[in-house]
Formats: sequence, C-alpha cells, structure tokens
Amino acid sequence: MGNCCESASNFFGPQKNTNVRVSLPAVCFVWQIAMIVLFGVFVRYDKESDAHWVELKKTENLTDLDNEFYFRYPSFQDVHVMIFVGFGFLMTFLKRYSFSAVGFNFLIAAFGLQWALLMQGWFHHFDYSTGKIYIGIESMINADFCCAGSLIAYGAILGKVSPVQLMVVTLFGVTLFAVEEFIILDLFHCRDAGGAMVIHCFGGYYGLAISWVLYRPNLHRSKRLNGSVYQSDLFAMIGTLFLWMFWPSFNSAIANHGEGQHRTAMNTYIALASSVLTTVAISSMSKKGGKLDMVHIQNATLAGGVAMGTAAELMITPYGSLIVGFCIGIISTFGYLYITPFLEERFKLQDTCGIHNLHAVPGMLGGFTGAIVAATASESVYSKEGLIATFDFTGKFENRSPGTQGGFQAAGVCVAMAFGLVGGAIVGFILKFPIWGDAADDNCFDDEAYWELVLPAMKCSLTIPAFFCTGETKSIH
Amino acid sequence: MGNCCESASNFFGPQKNTNVRVSLPAVCFVWQIAMIVLFGVFVRYDKESDAHWVELKKTENLTDLDNEFYFRYPSFQDVHVMIFVGFGFLMTFLKRYSFSAVGFNFLIAAFGLQWALLMQGWFHHFDYSTGKIYIGIESMINADFCCAGSLIAYGAILGKVSPVQLMVVTLFGVTLFAVEEFIILDLFHCRDAGGAMVIHCFGGYYGLAISWVLYRPNLHRSKRLNGSVYQSDLFAMIGTLFLWMFWPSFNSAIANHGEGQHRTAMNTYIALASSVLTTVAISSMSKKGGKLDMVHIQNATLAGGVAMGTAAELMITPYGSLIVGFCIGIISTFGYLYITPFLEERFKLQDTCGIHNLHAVPGMLGGFTGAIVAATASESVYSKEGLIATFDFTGKFENRSPGTQGGFQAAGVCVAMAFGLVGGAIVGFILKFPIWGDAADDNCFDDEAYWELVLPAMKCSLTIPAFFCTGETKSIH
Amino acid sequence: MGNCCESASNFFGPQKNTNVRVSLPAVCFVWQIAMIVLFGVFVRYDKESDAHWVELKKTENLTDLDNEFYFRYPSFQDVHVMIFVGFGFLMTFLKRYSFSAVGFNFLIAAFGLQWALLMQGWFHHFDYSTGKIYIGIESMINADFCCAGSLIAYGAILGKVSPVQLMVVTLFGVTLFAVEEFIILDLFHCRDAGGAMVIHCFGGYYGLAISWVLYRPNLHRSKRLNGSVYQSDLFAMIGTLFLWMFWPSFNSAIANHGEGQHRTAMNTYIALASSVLTTVAISSMSKKGGKLDMVHIQNATLAGGVAMGTAAELMITPYGSLIVGFCIGIISTFGYLYITPFLEERFKLQDTCGIHNLHAVPGMLGGFTGAIVAATASESVYSKEGLIATFDFTGKFENRSPGTQGGFQAAGVCVAMAFGLVGGAIVGFILKFPIWGDAADDNCFDDEAYWELVLPAMKCSLTIPAFFCTGETKSIH
Repeated sequence: MGNCCESASNFFGPQKNTNVRVSLPAVCFVWQIAMIVLFGVFVRYDKESDAHWVELKKTENLTDLDNEFYFRYPSFQDVHVMIFVGFGFLMTFLKRYSFSAVGFNFLIAAFGLQWALLMQGWFHHFDYSTGKIYIGIESMINADFCCAGSLIAYGAILGKVSPVQLMVVTLFGVTLFAVEEFIILDLFHCRDAGGAMVIHCFGGYYGLAISWVLYRPNLHRSKRLNGSVYQSDLFAMIGTLFLWMFWPSFNSAIANHGEGQHRTAMNTYIALASSVLTTVAISSMSKKGGKLDMVHIQNATLAGGVAMGTAAELMITPYGSLIVGFCIGIISTFGYLYITPFLEERFKLQDTCGIHNLHAVPGMLGGFTGAIVAATASESVYSKEGLIATFDFTGKFENRSPGTQGGFQAAGVCVAMAFGLVGGAIVGFILKFPIWGDAADDNCFDDEAYWELVLPAMKCSLTIPAFFCTGETKSIH
Repeated sequence: MGNCCESASNFFGPQKNTNVRVSLPAVCFVWQIAMIVLFGVFVRYDKESDAHWVELKKTENLTDLDNEFYFRYPSFQDVHVMIFVGFGFLMTFLKRYSFSAVGFNFLIAAFGLQWALLMQGWFHHFDYSTGKIYIGIESMINADFCCAGSLIAYGAILGKVSPVQLMVVTLFGVTLFAVEEFIILDLFHCRDAGGAMVIHCFGGYYGLAISWVLYRPNLHRSKRLNGSVYQSDLFAMIGTLFLWMFWPSFNSAIANHGEGQHRTAMNTYIALASSVLTTVAISSMSKKGGKLDMVHIQNATLAGGVAMGTAAELMITPYGSLIVGFCIGIISTFGYLYITPFLEERFKLQDTCGIHNLHAVPGMLGGFTGAIVAATASESVYSKEGLIATFDFTGKFENRSPGTQGGFQAAGVCVAMAFGLVGGAIVGFILKFPIWGDAADDNCFDDEAYWELVLPAMKCSLTIPAFFCTGETKSIH
Repeated sequence: MGNCCESASNFFGPQKNTNVRVSLPAVCFVWQIAMIVLFGVFVRYDKESDAHWVELKKTENLTDLDNEFYFRYPSFQDVHVMIFVGFGFLMTFLKRYSFSAVGFNFLIAAFGLQWALLMQGWFHHFDYSTGKIYIGIESMINADFCCAGSLIAYGAILGKVSPVQLMVVTLFGVTLFAVEEFIILDLFHCRDAGGAMVIHCFGGYYGLAISWVLYRPNLHRSKRLNGSVYQSDLFAMIGTLFLWMFWPSFNSAIANHGEGQHRTAMNTYIALASSVLTTVAISSMSKKGGKLDMVHIQNATLAGGVAMGTAAELMITPYGSLIVGFCIGIISTFGYLYITPFLEERFKLQDTCGIHNLHAVPGMLGGFTGAIVAATASESVYSKEGLIATFDFTGKFENRSPGTQGGFQAAGVCVAMAFGLVGGAIVGFILKFPIWGDAADDNCFDDEAYWELVLPAMKCSLTIPAFFCTGETKSIH
C-alpha cells in the first residue's frame, strides 16, 4: 500500500503549478476591498428596506404586507438553496473532486453575487439624480440569478481549472451577463422570468466556449478520476433534487405578482414532472438490461425547468408544459448519450458536466419556445389587461404586437448565445496564460491540488478500487 | 478479489429477470403521452393562475396578496421537499439500494403527481358546465399528498420490486387514493388536513397488503444486503430530518387560512418534539448498554407528525399534542422492536422500512384521535363561528353536531384502512404476474439489477466488509 | 483483520462507564412527563392560533393575511432547518461521531424547544391575570433560537460527553438563556434580532466554560478519532451551507415587519458573502501550496452571519455589512489557525468545533458592533418615525437617546458573556459527577459508545485507513 500510494503520487506528477498561495488570497482580498469601496460609493437601501419606509407607509397608507419582501422572500430563499446547495452538490459526483465542486461553487457564488449587485445595479437600477444604486429583495434574487450563469460555466470546466481562474470566469461572466441582460430585457423588452435565455443559454455557451479554448489533449491521463463512485453519486442527487424541487421558485421568483408567479410556478412544476419520465425512458432504452444511468437521472431530469425558463410565465397551458418537458427530457438524455461524446471526439470540446445538454441546448430551445408562445398570444387567451400585464406592453412598448414580441424574443436568444460564445472564447484565451495555477493534465479532477486532505493515505482506497492498493499491505506491518 | 467478486456474482444468481429495457421505457412513454392527451382534454388554469385574473382583480377589488399563491406556496415547497428529499433519502438507509430508493422515489412521484392532478381533479374539482378541471396551487399540494400514499407503500416493498411494478403501484395507489379521499372528505365531510387517514393509514395498509401478497419465502438469501452501513444511515438522516422539520407545513398546507394553518403547524411542531424523546427512551431501554438504534431514530421520531395528521387542525391544546407525541413515540418504537419481527415471522409480512409502525398504525390512531377531539368539540372552546369554520359546518352540513362529526371521522378511518387492505391485495396479485422484471430472492436490495454501476468492483468493498474480499488480491496483480 | 479489530477494541478500553440504559430513558421520560404537566397547567394558544380568532377577525375587521403566521412562518421554517440540519450536520465532520452529532443534536433540540416555550413564556409572555402563557408562531421561532444557545455549547464538548450530560447542558442552558434574554431585551431594552449577544455570545462562552471545567488531560488518547475523513467533511458541508443560506432568515425572523425584516435579511446576505472571500484568502495563505482547509470553509464562512446578529436590523449600510463580513472572516479563520491551539495548550481549553472562533468571539464583536451602530443612529438616517420603530423607543423608553441605547447594548454583551462563563462553569462542575455515563479519555469521539452499530467490523476500515487492517485478512478465510 505504501509503495502503491507513493508510486501513484509520482505518477500524478509534481504539482508545481497548482500553488495558489499568493494569487488566490490576492484576488480574494483585492476584489473584496474593491467591492467595499464600490458599495460605499454606489449602493444604498431601496425605499422598502430603508428605515424611512416607516414614514412612507403612513403617508402612502400602506400595510406592512405591501412591502415587496413578503412577495419575494420565500422564492429568494429557494433560489439561494439552488445556487449554493443545488449547483454545489450537483457537481460533487466526481469521486475525488467533491470539495472543489462544493467549495469553489461557494466561493465564486459569494463573490459573484456582490459583483452582480453592482453590475446589475448600474445597468438596471442606477439613479442618475443621486448617482446611487438602490437595492432590495429583487436585487438579491437577480444577483443570485446572475451568479448562476457563471456556475453553469463552471460545470463545463469542472476539474480542469484553478480557483483563481474560476474567479476570473465569474468576474467576466457576471459582467457579460449584465450587458446581455440589459440588451435582452431592457432594449428588446423580452420576457424571461426564469432566464432560459439570459441565464441558461448564455451560461451554457459561455462555459462551452471557455472549455473549447482550454482544450487539454492529454486529459485522458486523469481519466481514472473523471468518474463517480457510489457515494459521490448520492451526494450529487442532493443537488439534483434541490434544483428540481425549487425550480418552480426559480422561474417564478421575479415573475409578476399574483397570477404571474402562480402560473409560472405551476407550469414549471408540471414540465419537470414530465421530463423525469422521458429521461428514465431513454436512459433505460440505451443500456443493456434496461439499466439506468445516474448521469441522466442527475441531469436530464432538470432540463424541463430550463426549457420552461421563458415560457412558464406565459399562457402555455398545462399540457403545453407537459409537451415541453416530454421533448426536452428526450433531447437532453440523447445529448448525454451521443452529443457530448461526439463533441469531445470531433470538436475537441471537453464538457465535464455536460452543460451542453442541460443548459445550452435546453436554454436555447426554451428561448425559442418562449418566442413562439409569445408570438401566438392573443387577447382572447390573456384578456386585454392580462396581455398588457404579462408582456408589460406599457410606455414606449404600448403598441407592440405579440408577433413583434415573438420576434424580439427570438432575437434575444441569439444575443444570449453570441455573448456566451464570443465572451467565453475571449475569457478562455485570458485563462491560457500560464499564471493561474491550474493543474497538469494528469492531475485534473483531484482535490489534492487545492485542498489540505487530512488523510492522504485514504485517497487510494477511494479513488482506486481497494484491491489495487492492498497487495503491498504487509510491507508496512 | 477478482475471485471473490466473481463467486459473489454467481451467488447472486444470473439476473435474467430484471431486464426492463422494453417494459420500463414503454410504461414511461405510453403513460406520459396519456397524461399529455388527458391534460389537453381536461386541465386548465384556475382563475387565480390565469392571465384573466388581472381583470378579475380590478372588478372584484382584490389586491395581489389575495391570490391563493401567497397563502400556500411556502407550505407547498416544504411538502415538495418532503416528497422528494424526505421520502427519497429516508429510504437510502440500505447499504446497496440507495440509488433505487432515491431514484425510483423520484420517478414514481413525478408520475404520480400528474395522475393525481387528473384523478383528484375529476373527483373534487370537475366543472360539469365546461367539462374541465381547473388547477392551482392547492391542486399541486394535493397532488403531492396523493403521491405520498404510494411512496409510503414503496417503503414496505423497498428492494423487492422493479421500477415497472412501482409504476403500477402508483397508478393504482393514486386512483384508490382519489376515491377514498372523495368518500372521506366529500361524502363523510371529515376533516383530515394532514392526512392521517387518507394518506398515512391508507398508504400504510396499501403497502402492507401488497407486501403480504408478494411474500418471498427465500428473502433471507438477500439478507447480506438488507441492512445499513454507517454512511447510508447518515444519508437516511437527511431524509428523516427534512420530513421531521417540514411536517408542520405538511399538516398545515391545506388547513384553513389564518388561525387554522397557524394552530395546525404549532400542534404538529409540539407533538413531533415529544415523540423524539420517547423514541430515544424506548430505543435506549431496549438495547444492551442503552445504545440507540438508528432505525428508531430515523423513523419513530416522525410518528408524532403522522399521529397529528387529523387532530392538529383542531383545538387539541398544546399539552394534548405533547401527549399524542409521547404515546405514539413509544408505540412506534415498540413496533420496530417487536411487532415488525412478529409480523414477519408469524404473518409472512415483509415490511422493509417498517411502515406498519410509522404510517399504518400511527395513521390509524391519528384518525381515531381526530375523531375523539372532533366529538368533544364545543362552542365554548371554539366559539360559535370558530366551530363552524373549523369543521366547515355549512351548506348541507349546517346542522351536524360535533358528536356526529366524530362518528364520521371514525368511519373515515375504517374506509381508509379498507381501501388500503383490499386495494393493496388486488394490486399485489396483479404484481405477481411474471412479467414485471422483479429480482430473484437472492438478488433483492441490490442496485446492480436496475442501475449502471460504473465500478462494479467497488461493490465488494461496500457491501461486504473489505476483509472478505482482499484475501485473493494478489491474483490480479 | 479480526485480530486487528479485536486488539483495537481492547485498546479503546472496556466501555464500562457509557452505559446509559437507565439514566437516558429516565431523563427522557421524566422530563417529557414534566413538560406535559407544565404545558397542561400553563400553555395555551395565543389569540392568533385559537379558533376564537375567526370571531376576532370579524369584530376587528382583519383579513386572513393579518395573521402573524404569514409574516413569520417561512422564516420559522428556515430557522428550523438551521437548528436541525444546519447544526446537526455541521458537527458530522468527525469521522466516527456523525450519528452522535446529528442524533444528539436532534434529541436536545427537541427537548430544548419545549422547555424554551415554558421558560421564555414565563419570562416574556406570562399573563398574570389568567396565569397562562399564550404561544404562537413567534414563540416557536424564539424557542428554536433558545435551543441554539445549547447547541452551540454542544460544539465545544462534542465527542466528550454522554447524551444525558447533553440533556443537562440543555436544561440549564435554556434556563440561563431565558434569564439573560430577559435582562438584555426586556430590562436593558436592547435590540438583538439575530441574537449576536443572547444566542451566540452567551452560547459560545457557556460551551467554552463547560469544556474548560471538563478538561481531559489524556484526550490525546482518542486523537485517532478526532478528525475528519473525506465523506464526513462533505456531510458537514451540508450543515455549513444550510446555515449559511438561511442565516438571513435567522437574523430577520423576529425583526420588525416590513422594512425591518427586509433590511435585516439583506445586510446579513451581504456580510456573509464578504466573509467567504476573506476566509478563503486567509485559509489559503496559511498553508503550503495555498491549499484550503475544510475546517475554515465549514466554519469561518459563517462568522459573517453571527457578527451581524445585532447590527443587521440597523441602518449599518450595505458597505458597512461588507466591512463587518470582511473583518470577521479574517478574525475567525485566524482563530482556527492560532487561537484554538493556543487555548488548548495554554489554557487547557478543548474546543472540538472551535466555537470560540465561530460563536463566542464573533458574537461578542457583533454585539459591540451593534452598540456602535446604535449609538451613532440619528433621525436624519432613520427618519423620526423610523428611529422610534427600529429601537422601539416607546412607553417608558420614549426619551432614550441613541447614545444611551448604545451603552445599554454594550452592557448587554457583558451580561451575555457573564451568564455564559459563570453558568457554564457551574454546569461544568455538575457534569463532573461520575454518574452521567461519559466515555473514558481513550474512547471519546466514538459512536460505538452510544449507538448500536450494525457492522462493527466496518469500523476499522473507516476510522483507520484500510491498509492497517488488511494484513491479517487471511486468518479469517
């Protein structure tokens, strides 16, 4: 055993490059101090979280419950769980990279949400008269959403980058997100409550483009670690289930008050149920003996939520939601079976978590679904007031027709994809500089590089089936 | 090791029968398509989730907060977590069946909730004028509740059935549930907010009857896998705790607005705390050295929530709740210690999770508790209006007395039990046909049958203590 | 293996003292019966959970939503998750004490919340005219908070005490809590929504004082078990994340309706994000190669929530929250690196979970931060009405100035600390009696003492790296 571990350690290669003792603390400190300064200059409580609200309540004759907090806070907490436990644990499926999955997810989301409060504030909530950004509960939800784009990208490069690189991915990811979101939601006036376009389509292609630029021809040298064990798959199921259960809250968190949130949650709930059945069906059909593959169950079951990101808010009808879930469960599982291996072999695209099948394609299709549902909206289905409220046909968009809206929705998908692909390619090139502390090809997917592991000897028995290690046992007795 | 695993594999027997490559995809596809068609014909948004609500709000002078969504959605999400993470992880305690526990729970709940929306819709919310079912947030909660009946039944047959059989169990379980619920809640006009009768008593006896019919005389051949390991017990504790914590939401989710939900949540909270202490006491008394048994802590602590399913909504008083929790913690733990082994030995009833002690008996006793509390209700305790509101003594039930109500509540328990036992027996016989792909007696409790396990070699070191496997190690070096 | 385990077992020493077969059931039964009697005498539903509310609603012209339940219940459930899953799983990090961590946490919280309903009721909600305590949703939140003090204390003595001792710790902990809370919140009229003083500072020093009195000079004999393994660290991350995510709910759960809850949640959210970055920075700087230490990530990231316990409710500003998180992340991580080892070596203080760095010091500093922010409050920042509402300057406190308030807040910190230290010392001495069933020095941190472990043979392969055990394998073949 001793010998085995030693030789294994040599085989992993000297971990020269993964020293982040200077760069990681430097990035964390400098960026956090920058956040403090920028928050000091720009960020203030909005009127519903400021102590002055007590007076406002009296003058405007409001009740406590009129505070936006009560409309959004339960949804916010569900979204928060998805970001930290959902995304974090979903990526723990690798046998030896669970600390990095959940730990770096934690780090970059905690940074990303601060940067998102600023970026989204500048683009959406900047008050030119005072020069301030005013934040409240809706800003918190949007900040969590904005992080999600970068966390999705993390899925494509999981195991192959350093925490410093992830901070860079998040810095640019949040920045790009705020810009594309401004174009899609403000300029194009699209509806995208659950972010099929702005979050999933953008995040998915952003991650794929980064991963494509960072292609590692010798990644097979880490192949022994690029897989799961029984217990790591169970940890990943915690992530899957919290994502799946709370996706109705994700899509409805910033939908319109009342029937808007109500319908969005219900449509998502129905679509997700449907995608579970088709995922199981395709997974079982594809394997000898009809055995299910945990990868499919962990991922493709969620595609229904992604694909409903835009349309859930609209009058897609309950059976429409079922159909979307039905189709996307099939498409996503097929993606895991055939497209991801194909992309890796032919296009040199290494996508650790298969975000192509869970976020990029379902997000894109979800965006187009939303465009079609929007284009076919009518006053008979929505009512006159309902149509105006649902699509916010007010102000300078007062005279927009559903058809035009559908066109802009489709254009929005293209913008999200373009931002993802171009932005990701640029960020990928930045990450190729040899200064970021990423691991060598034969040392990927290994927590050893960035985490103090108390019992390194245990590694053997976890990563390599026990019987490879025990032959030399007697030598240490 | 090689030899050991190989011989173990032979010992497991050739897994001829567990091929579900045709049946599982067929069932998933056909039933999901049927759902789409039926939803298309029958299911529409109710008025609070339809875009027309924007106009209704104006004409009826409502505020956004009057939408039912804000009364129910946080409770719905808690119930949703109980169904998918709670039930799913509670059953991961088996050392080698965790994928099936959490995965099949996921599958059948996702199917069951769709079928429940239809079945409950036809029985409770069918609008004869339009021929449609109108669904909203309360339908979603009820659909989750309806699934719970079948998930409870899964607990009795855990490890012994195929996923196709579980789909059948769910199809019939949801159907039976909708009928007995109609009889108990609509015809008998019982109160059963947390479903002690309609969910737990029914689900418990339904599962027991199925398991009794499916008796496997040689199940001891799988005995090596019918137990837990350290980590699987910890995963199960995730399930236990989410069930325990959210049970107040479960019982109060569809209780009356205002004081109804308030009191129901509080009574359940108090009763659950009490049952933890008596569970620990009995568990400790029963073992040498006063050592606790994880099985009891994982299960009997929850019995307080089940037993309060009916009475929590009523004025049972805080100390009444404590007494219920006190007694049921003792009864449930005794059940695990003595009754389950007795039933297995004498009545040939194999109950993997001991649902007899957690659902069947506490549900039945909870139903009778509710009957007694209802029968003793008075205007002095409830106030005149409160009594009418709590028991919904309106319309044709305007003149019902508390005593009569108590009688109907007791009759309701019997109906639930009868539906469970008879329905379960019939479903059990259906499941005996040799077409469903269930495992052989010596191959039960094993994920291997239905899941693609990446490292089958790891199985040995997990299921059989490592030292049994390592003796032959050198043969593969 | 057989030999190895046997000899290991002898080495652990005969577990004579850990027999709790009489004491644990006795304590559970007697105390639970006492709860029932006391609840019967004293505890009733408050007016918002009593069926009479239906009439009150009519006479006072209320809507259903005016019921306090809808303001507090989502926050309550988040707090409930923190108490049972958060605290419970955070302590599962020890390789061989996870059952006790999560199981005893469950037991003592379930007892503690009942006793807290009584103690807090007598001190805060006792109605002298009727001789009753009236409980509702806010009582439930406060009861959970009250337990938290004792659960924090458990962190210091984790692995070294018996469940019976923990019940005693909780009995006195809840009692002391209710008294110090009465002094701080009622007599001093302090604001402490998230309990930096009354929960964390008190609980931290209470646990440290107990642990100091129970010093075990030969604890190093259990050193082999006082550490984590890969999977136990992952379980602990579940606890960390649920605590981290729901901390905004913890701090805001009993804050003022409307802007009060809104601002409290947002400040906490921001501060927590900031403390993640500085924790990572310091952790990385301290280790060779910049490797992160799971202990820091699991604990110090949470310090931001503790430190904002008092100030989050006040107008500390968003950047003020970031600064608090920034500093406390550094301080807490330094504590884990240098202060805990120093305290153990020089002051004979064995603090298993390092509550000194996560609760005691951040709680104390959070209390003083609150005092400073309170002392500098002004009408220009809060508005006249806002200042009165935030600090409740009504009744006999009508004329209190912010400066005076700041002084009382600072005095409150001292009271909390004094109660913790003196109370903990006394409870520690009580626990030294040799009647409580605690384990010997060489048998600490081991579930074996109090839990029926199904496969004791597995213990070896979990606690001691596999290769130590496998040498003797052949002897059993």
